[in-house]
Amino acid sequence: MKLLTVDTIKQAQDKLYTYAQHILPRTEKITIEHAVGRVLAQDAAAQENVPDFYRSTVDGYAVKATDTQGASESIPTFLRIVEEVQIGHPAKSTIKSGECVYVPTGGMLPAGADAMVMIEYTEAFSDDEIAVYESVAQGKCVVTPGEDVKQGATVVKKGTVLKAEHIGALASAGVWEIEVFVPWTVSIISTGDELIAPNEKLSLGQVRDVNTWSLNAMATDCGFKVVRCIKVKDDEALFRAELENAKKDSDVVLTSGGSSQGKKDMTNDVMDSVCDEGTFTHGLSIKPGKPTILAFDKASSTFMIGLPGHPVASLTVFHALVVNLWKNVTHQPQQKPLIAKMETNVAGAPGKTTFMLAKTYINYETGELMVKPVQAKSGLINSMVDTDGYIEIDMNKEGLKKGEAVLVYRFGI
Amino acid sequence: MKLLTVDTIKQAQDKLYTYAQHILPRTEKITIEHAVGRVLAQDAAAQENVPDFYRSTVDGYAVKATDTQGASESIPTFLRIVEEVQIGHPAKSTIKSGECVYVPTGGMLPAGADAMVMIEYTEAFSDDEIAVYESVAQGKCVVTPGEDVKQGATVVKKGTVLKAEHIGALASAGVWEIEVFVPWTVSIISTGDELIAPNEKLSLGQVRDVNTWSLNAMATDCGFKVVRCIKVKDDEALFRAELENAKKDSDVVLTSGGSSQGKKDMTNDVMDSVCDEGTFTHGLSIKPGKPTILAFDKASSTFMIGLPGHPVASLTVFHALVVNLWKNVTHQPQQKPLIAKMETNVAGAPGKTTFMLAKTYINYETGELMVKPVQAKSGLINSMVDTDGYIEIDMNKEGLKKGEAVLVYRFGI
Repeated sequence: MKLLTVDTIKQAQDKLYTYAQHILPRTEKITIEHAVGRVLAQDAAAQENVPDFYRSTVDGYAVKATDTQGASESIPTFLRIVEEVQIGHPAKSTIKSGECVYVPTGGMLPAGADAMVMIEYTEAFSDDEIAVYESVAQGKCVVTPGEDVKQGATVVKKGTVLKAEHIGALASAGVWEIEVFVPWTVSIISTGDELIAPNEKLSLGQVRDVNTWSLNAMATDCGFKVVRCIKVKDDEALFRAELENAKKDSDVVLTSGGSSQGKKDMTNDVMDSVCDEGTFTHGLSIKPGKPTILAFDKASSTFMIGLPGHPVASLTVFHALVVNLWKNVTHQPQQKPLIAKMETNVAGAPGKTTFMLAKTYINYETGELMVKPVQAKSGLINSMVDTDGYIEIDMNKEGLKKGEAVLVYRFGI
Repeated sequence: MKLLTVDTIKQAQDKLYTYAQHILPRTEKITIEHAVGRVLAQDAAAQENVPDFYRSTVDGYAVKATDTQGASESIPTFLRIVEEVQIGHPAKSTIKSGECVYVPTGGMLPAGADAMVMIEYTEAFSDDEIAVYESVAQGKCVVTPGEDVKQGATVVKKGTVLKAEHIGALASAGVWEIEVFVPWTVSIISTGDELIAPNEKLSLGQVRDVNTWSLNAMATDCGFKVVRCIKVKDDEALFRAELENAKKDSDVVLTSGGSSQGKKDMTNDVMDSVCDEGTFTHGLSIKPGKPTILAFDKASSTFMIGLPGHPVASLTVFHALVVNLWKNVTHQPQQKPLIAKMETNVAGAPGKTTFMLAKTYINYETGELMVKPVQAKSGLINSMVDTDGYIEIDMNKEGLKKGEAVLVYRFGI
């Protein structure tokens, strides 16, 4: 008989990470057109220097800085205009001492020029001559090639969840195709004769299936691809058949159902026999969320996660285990928790880590970030609305005090 | 000749909101299966009481509370078991005084029962009789019908951006179909002979088109549907034809290009003639971002927004105007800015509101939320990476001081 293992969150996370070395996400090439929200799988390098020419930051005249030495409002220097550069087009000339070229903002300096004189410090003297009333230093109002980004330098780092600003940076450096991680495929299987879908007629004594739909939403929101949401009757053979089937196309199989001891045993036994590595965690020392079962099948590279039936627990455990694991294996920086002040006292459960849903808000009078714990009574779903994350009460603490600073972990990726 | 109007952000937002009354987003019915990230268009009401029966929160025996009066460890009360309720099935019996029914956690209490005695406080006495060692009050360990949510009560409010926890709450209340807002369709048209797409070969003097792709990403991320991204040459007739075409299927047309005076005049003139209500804002008193043009076409219900060419400015103006407007017309609660402490001094631009990209982080030693302003020099794109929002420096302030508390507006919806 196998020893049943109850783990802390940290122990379970570590075990998952070890097994995950067999299930490292595949990567694929996509264009930046459809990249928002995806996770970059390789450092993206600049295809060219940015800018790739000497670029003016002002409207004015490109000059040799030495030609302007000593020029002032009372003693101008006179320069001959040899070209007018258009934005988007190369400068053709090479200027010699005594010559200048008109360059608009963003335009290219001609060869031989090493500084810009703003148009405000010049005066047209004749059709092809200007008076310069300012002495400029070399490099004045000029961005040099590669000053923004050098060719080959990393523009956006591996593990970055791509947002608008990253995609703008990639575009500016001539990066069109990028390598991103292929999202994990997820199956959600709920069990329980008492559970009834939200679109089915409810009979007396039955309970709505909540977890399938909240898990489907969170998995989708975190970028996973949900390949199936199904409900099976409390029948060991049917349950086994569905797990075997889900193994074929899923990286992660989530099961969710009642957390009664009998059902937990059934989930554990079936997962243990369906997965070649068997079940390796048979409970978590957290509250709510204790009845969590973890298994791994090496042959198909599939994790099976038996989540607790409690709606709040199933979301927090999914977030703390699966979303956390995905972030780790895709090299995402760990989400930094917020620090907030407790609005009220709350009690913990000594010996068990307690997760509690919470809502953060700013007290605009004091400027402090506050957190309001939301008591999630068994089965009460109203507590799930209007929360944005959770707090953790350490297993060695009796609770948290009003005004105490606490870390807040936010849902989402 | 029309008077050219330079507006503050607030004035531009107010004008857009007034015109938006003609372009209120349509709504559509979808199921909660595909609802994550969508904005609820109507309060969603519970289809039934939650729970819809007297539900036990423990494993134990349903009793008449009066029968247990005086029961204690030394003087038990004896009750006869008349039924064993299965989870998910109705209780069939009606208990009389002296009777009890076994009910598991989540199971239904039989008629006549008004309290639960936990199994730990009972002892099997014979096959159909138990000893009860506890006196329980009416309602003990029982959730009454509608205690969590009453039938018809609002479960999730109009204007909510649906997350996993909202979808869980909807499922629990038997809500399958919901009414959500149809996202705005967006066209992105970039102009400029000097601009070259990231997948085209760069010639000397040319500059990469950044704004099309960063705007495409941010619009998508905020839930809009981008229907086209195109680039047109600096040709008034071509530009006009593309605007006319985009009017047909777009709620919002974004144009982005050089911000030179000539190009701004062209954008203004073409938008003014293409839109029946004409252009109504010809510049914003912000930095960067001054060259912003706003127009509205009532016949096709289309906003046209000429964004500044500066990559940082185009994102911040898009966020401050279009994303903000979408939130307003879909009844979303205003995003609350964070309050953070300035890491350094920064200078403003008296007379103009200054937007500055910023990165927030927690100083874990002091527990304070800090903000690091990122100087966005004209054309430097590196400043766009590793930021998560922006700060605003009031037009009447010379700048912000290190350690000063400041509001941080985050990108995203």
